[in-house]
Amino acid sequence: MIPEQYHDLLESTALAHVATIGPHGEPQVNPVWFGWNGQHLRFSQTTTRQKLRNVQRDPRIALSIVDPANPLRYLEVRGRVVAVEPDPELAFINQMARKYLGLERYPWHRAGDERVVVVVAPEHTTHMG
Amino acid sequence: MIPEQYHDLLESTALAHVATIGPHGEPQVNPVWFGWNGQHLRFSQTTTRQKLRNVQRDPRIALSIVDPANPLRYLEVRGRVVAVEPDPELAFINQMARKYLGLERYPWHRAGDERVVVVVAPEHTTHMG
Repeated sequence: MIPEQYHDLLESTALAHVATIGPHGEPQVNPVWFGWNGQHLRFSQTTTRQKLRNVQRDPRIALSIVDPANPLRYLEVRGRVVAVEPDPELAFINQMARKYLGLERYPWHRAGDERVVVVVAPEHTTHMG
Repeated sequence: MIPEQYHDLLESTALAHVATIGPHGEPQVNPVWFGWNGQHLRFSQTTTRQKLRNVQRDPRIALSIVDPANPLRYLEVRGRVVAVEPDPELAFINQMARKYLGLERYPWHRAGDERVVVVVAPEHTTHMG
């Protein structure tokens, strides 16, 4: 699905800027840490976030990822949220802390924060560079 | 409109990841060079690009800008495209080439490319860090 020559971006520590559709049909976008397991892009959210409500209302999503080593090279992945999985043991957010911070555990977890993993199936890409 | 403490991001050489609504109501997002004149965010497009058709159909837009010096700090600007201005002398895209490349002229202009400036009025922001 995603062209081979962009797989390095999926393994990099680039942020993904995630666009979703808000409650009035408007675009919303912000950066997230993401992981790639060869099939899905995944990112963590607390259950109170607007973005989670957005994808539960409309699962269509797009992610923009720029090469940290070359700002003229990017990949856009468009797809759908196909699952929202609980992360009660914080396994996924801790994996992201290892990837992005080099830390064993996500350092900003607060008691009471409920985390989920948003799972995105790619359907289409655009790219440059 | 945009909190004072994030104005440095508007002056930085960070990219803006621009989210628009596609022809079927789906989100689309990709990085652009942008300028800030104290009132509007502006970016350049060729007239053949999907993104331009998107904002002519639905002017709602969102831009995500991460601090190049601190990946945990970001600004999201939501707003509307309030004008699409011709750039026949390439004044604006050349200004962007100076900002982002340190070059007097945009080096990839092709004869026949018609460029416009997309002018965004901010209406709302979200931010972190």
